Amino acid sequence: SEEIFLGNYLLTRLEQLGVKSMFGVPGDFNLGFLDLVEDHPTIDWIGNCNELNASYAADGYARVKEQSLGVLLTTFGVGELSAINGIAGAFSEMVPVLHIAGVPSTTQQKSKPMLHHTLGDGRYDAYLKAAAQFTISQADLTNAASAASEIDRVLVDCIVHARPTYLTLPTDLVYTKISSERLKIPLSHLPPPNDADEEEFVISEIEKLVNEADNDVVVLVDACAIRHDARKELREMIEKTQFPVYSAPMGKSVVAETYERYGGIYVGSISHPEIKEKVESAKLILSIGSLKSDFNSGNFTYSIPTMRTVELHSSWTKVKYAEFPGIGMKQLLPKLTQRLHAYNALARQIEVPKFVANVPQEEDDVISHNWFWPRMSGFFKPKDIIVAETGTSSFGILDVPLPNDAVFLAQILWGSIGWTVGSTLGAALAGRELGLGRTILFIGDGSLQLTVQEFTSMLKKDLKPIIFVLNNSGYTIERYLHGKTRHYNDIVNWKWTSLLSVLGDEDGTKSKSYTVKNKAELSELLDNSSFANADVMQLVEVIMPMHDAPRALQVQAELSGKTNKYVA
Amino acid sequence: SEEIFLGNYLLTRLEQLGVKSMFGVPGDFNLGFLDLVEDHPTIDWIGNCNELNASYAADGYARVKEQSLGVLLTTFGVGELSAINGIAGAFSEMVPVLHIAGVPSTTQQKSKPMLHHTLGDGRYDAYLKAAAQFTISQADLTNAASAASEIDRVLVDCIVHARPTYLTLPTDLVYTKISSERLKIPLSHLPPPNDADEEEFVISEIEKLVNEADNDVVVLVDACAIRHDARKELREMIEKTQFPVYSAPMGKSVVAETYERYGGIYVGSISHPEIKEKVESAKLILSIGSLKSDFNSGNFTYSIPTMRTVELHSSWTKVKYAEFPGIGMKQLLPKLTQRLHAYNALARQIEVPKFVANVPQEEDDVISHNWFWPRMSGFFKPKDIIVAETGTSSFGILDVPLPNDAVFLAQILWGSIGWTVGSTLGAALAGRELGLGRTILFIGDGSLQLTVQEFTSMLKKDLKPIIFVLNNSGYTIERYLHGKTRHYNDIVNWKWTSLLSVLGDEDGTKSKSYTVKNKAELSELLDNSSFANADVMQLVEVIMPMHDAPRALQVQAELSGKTNKYVA
Ligand SMILES: Cc1ncc(C[n+]2csc(CCOP(=O)(O)OP(=O)(O)O)c2C)c(N)n1
Ligand SMILES: Cc1ncc(C[n+]2csc(CCOP(=O)(O)OP(=O)(O)O)c2C)c(N)n1
Ligand SMILES: [Mg+2]
Ligand SMILES: [Mg+2]
Repeated sequence: SEEIFLGNYLLTRLEQLGVKSMFGVPGDFNLGFLDLVEDHPTIDWIGNCNELNASYAADGYARVKEQSLGVLLTTFGVGELSAINGIAGAFSEMVPVLHIAGVPSTTQQKSKPMLHHTLGDGRYDAYLKAAAQFTISQADLTNAASAASEIDRVLVDCIVHARPTYLTLPTDLVYTKISSERLKIPLSHLPPPNDADEEEFVISEIEKLVNEADNDVVVLVDACAIRHDARKELREMIEKTQFPVYSAPMGKSVVAETYERYGGIYVGSISHPEIKEKVESAKLILSIGSLKSDFNSGNFTYSIPTMRTVELHSSWTKVKYAEFPGIGMKQLLPKLTQRLHAYNALARQIEVPKFVANVPQEEDDVISHNWFWPRMSGFFKPKDIIVAETGTSSFGILDVPLPNDAVFLAQILWGSIGWTVGSTLGAALAGRELGLGRTILFIGDGSLQLTVQEFTSMLKKDLKPIIFVLNNSGYTIERYLHGKTRHYNDIVNWKWTSLLSVLGDEDGTKSKSYTVKNKAELSELLDNSSFANADVMQLVEVIMPMHDAPRALQVQAELSGKTNKYVA
Repeated sequence: SEEIFLGNYLLTRLEQLGVKSMFGVPGDFNLGFLDLVEDHPTIDWIGNCNELNASYAADGYARVKEQSLGVLLTTFGVGELSAINGIAGAFSEMVPVLHIAGVPSTTQQKSKPMLHHTLGDGRYDAYLKAAAQFTISQADLTNAASAASEIDRVLVDCIVHARPTYLTLPTDLVYTKISSERLKIPLSHLPPPNDADEEEFVISEIEKLVNEADNDVVVLVDACAIRHDARKELREMIEKTQFPVYSAPMGKSVVAETYERYGGIYVGSISHPEIKEKVESAKLILSIGSLKSDFNSGNFTYSIPTMRTVELHSSWTKVKYAEFPGIGMKQLLPKLTQRLHAYNALARQIEVPKFVANVPQEEDDVISHNWFWPRMSGFFKPKDIIVAETGTSSFGILDVPLPNDAVFLAQILWGSIGWTVGSTLGAALAGRELGLGRTILFIGDGSLQLTVQEFTSMLKKDLKPIIFVLNNSGYTIERYLHGKTRHYNDIVNWKWTSLLSVLGDEDGTKSKSYTVKNKAELSELLDNSSFANADVMQLVEVIMPMHDAPRALQVQAELSGKTNKYVA
């Protein structure tokens, strides 16, 4: 079979997996490979402003491009380490990102000269060791013979387990010729099959419980249903069974929030009382892809006994106290659906509170969180990609029902602020590739300061996201947690509405920026169809009070205050 | 003795070590400690825009504040990992930085709940393991009893070895009371003493070689003389002995470049031919603090045989082939000076080429590197802090003699672009604390895009650096290495002169910005005394050709091109 450059082997694999955008920053150890990327007909080099932003972008891209992955290319040491927090975030939140680090040649790796970007002590393996903490597998390419299988291994690990993996690409190997034979067999996304007998046993057990529960069953969806590619199977299950559905914050939007059997967000004691009551009083809870982190569970305040719970996970199942390792939900769900289908007439009788956002009537004209989030609800359209930054935004958005086929992105477990700027870039690119709708970002003034330069890449690539910058004079979420009037929670005010013109929209044709100071101004803007159509990139500075926060954050803050006291 | 909060124990230690500024970003795991920092009478919380920039700032601060250290405070996971590249840079370049990570309480560290900022798999030690790759010692505080000695240990390691160390600060321990007894004994900077007999032996050996060399001795100074606090001892040695002195790039400015016995920069085959000849033909080379990295040695092209070399290092000495571990230069140098003093009459007779920068007459008005750097030379004043970013700047500045007591900062080994923005912030703060002169930064348009937001902190703290942004339409240094006309070496052009007003100088009173397109405009600006006096922060956009580079970079590029070929 044909011999091709190792670098092109890798690119062909990425192409097969649907990768059309690659993120990163050039450096002299990856320039040779970048020639191949730039010359590749279908993979576009994005070229980010810095590596952390690039890693965030690869993460956002991967979240939106189901079945594909995000790819990050950095240079030895300085580049790869700059990105490590973004990779750790992808690990934590289960996002398939391949991190390719351009590294010195195989000869240099052996002789270990004191090259720039080294630690000066000959430890050429230090970066790999660090990467190993935050990736599920690593391939340190050292020769052409094993390169193709090594590349395949980290790619498969990445897409099957939905976690980041790491690959070193020595300068000389990029242009080494290897066989293209393996490329004929595409890489598989599929998790290992469930054992049929065990699976059948599990299904019967679940069916028994559903029976015993008199169909008083509630489905609770969460992060891993999204991350492990079980959206379709899940949606079919809930439609066929007609069980009421609620979602944890990290499961938001996997089930259409307009769906009639959908009741809203369950987040332990932070939930709306009615939702809390409905979920916690159900005789059986089918929990799909649950991930019980503090912010995803109302600070661990689930009140659902194990004896009433069935948990479906990506690679295991739990029925009451019994664990079934190896029984994963992607294959289990369709069979379960078939079996439980029969119960739908009864299930349909259980009432589900309608999940709606009512815009409150408020006396004053200040843009309060209480008003802002329900008001935004009317602005969203089907297929919009909605991104919420950690802070008041990630809490505020929870109470807003999103339209059909909306995609929702937030980092509720990892919570690295600034992440949304990069991930909005990646998400918007993926959205364009897939023909989705607008990309809409909500971000705090504090968070934006970490990663603002990535607006440049959005302008460069002619993307048209709508960015709402919540200007509330600093780190409001922190003020609620600790240090209400402390200066360390202040930030320097920027001219937010000048950012886009300074950071890349030189002649002012590629963007528009607005400031809205009160409800009337915001409403008018939202109702303006040329704004809503998003023909250019747009930034809206929303003036909000320093000491205001969404209900969910206020409750969360009280809860964390209790567990996390500073005794002063 | 009095009991104090553990957090205050740490702050008192830092105060004793001369720390007056602390860098970092708040996060809920460090807010309790930040209360103590904000209330501390002499330590100022800088509050950076992001953690990478903060780590760069701590590095720049430590470089300028001899005998002190830089301190970085981040939050668990997301914050500390964002900073890891900056810490690795401090490791590589030998800069004393203490990285304090605010982490969950000691109880949580044991029970390992799935808190935000965790990896979701209970591995609470992953961040420490990563940090261990890039710091020379770590203290993971787990109880009050050992906390004070653990804090002291990482502080002493940091300042004695001039390398970063890492400290975790659990939320609950900050307000635990501990004895303040240990604070009565200040921590020592001093390296362990040399063995007297061995030291005497080494001195005699060196004296013998100097004799044999008929005083044809050249001193070559380098990085570690600066990093390991041997500046004073070194300066005294060269003045008393009158040996000719040359400097490696990383040793630049440790010896006054106006000093009559100073001959300029030696960097292997990249050196000016006359300097190369002078250094390489000397009968004996006394090399002080040498660090032979690629860019610091003209791509390993030193032509100085071991048989003619004596190397003094921070903790060992080498005479020809013989190594003397444990014999460090700080204590050796004064004794060596005493012994070699006698030879100065003869040494003085050896001629040293004057290190000057002649501004060339060029036909056209374009700002070429050839013209720019010598022209800048006339602008510098004694005590200026001069910072050069990796790229054309770090190569261009090499040929410019710096004035007396100038401080020079560059990252010639680590070479992480964007570093100078943070380090300029730190350096300017340290410079203000120490009563030094202006802080002047040279940075490429590409590098600035990585870390631009840190201008905000300069404005916030009323610093007045002068920033020269070399606008040459992208990554010129890379174009010389590979991909001359490749798009991956392009960047989006910004409105550079609007940056300061957008990023914090709201009413335009705190900064001025200029664009200079030709030699006349730049010269006029440099000669303008109100510009030179730097009463406000200033940014100068310098328009330069895309394909122009300083001589040293052109030669380096040819050399690396040869060793680092991409076979396409
Ligand atoms: C990388 C990183 N650094 C620090 C933090 C700690 N942190 C969490 S939220 C927050 C403040 C966010 O402020 P802003 O974006 O203005 O949000 P809002 O005011 O809307 O709450 C900070 C500093 C973090 N989560 N991630
Ligand atoms: C963090 C990091 N990312 C990438 C690189 C690779 N790199 C080295 S120099 C350079 C370009 C610098 O461009 P610019 O600042 O414009 O310098 P100039 O044009 O003056 O050479 C890049 C991308 C690096 N050294 N560090
Ligand atoms: Mg805010
Ligand atoms: Mg440039």
